[in-house]
Amino acid sequence: MDAHEELKSFIRDVPDFPKKGILFRDITPALIDPAAFSLICDLLYKRYHDAGIDKIVSIESRGFIFASVLAFRLGKGFVPLRKPGKLPWKTVCESYELEYGRSTLEMHSDAVEPGDRVLVIDDLLATGGTAAAAVKLVENRGGTVDEIAFVIELGALKGREKLKGRAIFSLISY
Amino acid sequence: MDAHEELKSFIRDVPDFPKKGILFRDITPALIDPAAFSLICDLLYKRYHDAGIDKIVSIESRGFIFASVLAFRLGKGFVPLRKPGKLPWKTVCESYELEYGRSTLEMHSDAVEPGDRVLVIDDLLATGGTAAAAVKLVENRGGTVDEIAFVIELGALKGREKLKGRAIFSLISY
Repeated sequence: MDAHEELKSFIRDVPDFPKKGILFRDITPALIDPAAFSLICDLLYKRYHDAGIDKIVSIESRGFIFASVLAFRLGKGFVPLRKPGKLPWKTVCESYELEYGRSTLEMHSDAVEPGDRVLVIDDLLATGGTAAAAVKLVENRGGTVDEIAFVIELGALKGREKLKGRAIFSLISY
Repeated sequence: MDAHEELKSFIRDVPDFPKKGILFRDITPALIDPAAFSLICDLLYKRYHDAGIDKIVSIESRGFIFASVLAFRLGKGFVPLRKPGKLPWKTVCESYELEYGRSTLEMHSDAVEPGDRVLVIDDLLATGGTAAAAVKLVENRGGTVDEIAFVIELGALKGREKLKGRAIFSLISY
């Protein structure tokens, strides 16, 4: 069994969450198991350890869990993107469609500088709306997004179409 | 200058956030600076690397940033505590008073098992309400809380009184 398939055994399927008819892929069993969590972190490290990334841009809040470990190991800056009203300083924001509604993502306006090479990390690629907003936030500040990395990709929701032309990497696909 | 004082130079003071009269201590400059972020992570690792902790219980969402790095380095399980409605599986919950209102914290009911020795991590000790709720969640499942660790402690808000009798560690105090 390869590492990606092995990881799947640590994802818990939760039917009808957050609403009826949705099958939620729960990553918490992979967080509580040290070997599974290390495997996720190592697969990301292996892919990006010599990629020339300047900053890791991470999406609240599950994205933080994987992005912070990678930022620490790479010795690169960690940039949190958060829901509106959470970041205390000057922010820029982007609104986007969610799988279940609409939302906005904020970034501190000094977090990305022109020329920064950025890796965007989130736990889940669903419709791609959140990641597309993150890319806009980075690019509007003059940064370039080298790749967008996810732990889980839900292929049926066609997030790759919304991120067309972008380099995308996911550890587990459904 | 000792490490804790050095870290203070990476905390940005933001007046009147989230409301008038509050001086917010913004950790994001310490996240974006790799040396400062490493220093925080190393100080936590140094304190807990041989502490016999079984699980790191971490409070959404800034707590995740530091807790995940420590859990990875210690090779221990990472348990996220989240706002209501975010965790998909069976949960237990605790309500508590916040500095600016009232909130509830949820934990998956299988996340902590009887006998688990737990370290609770959050970014900020303010009034201590959130941490006290986290402690209750752990203890109600039969776990013991060895210590509660914070990056920043706001001494004037007397969080230690609400956590009386608990072992508390903070990297930066105001």
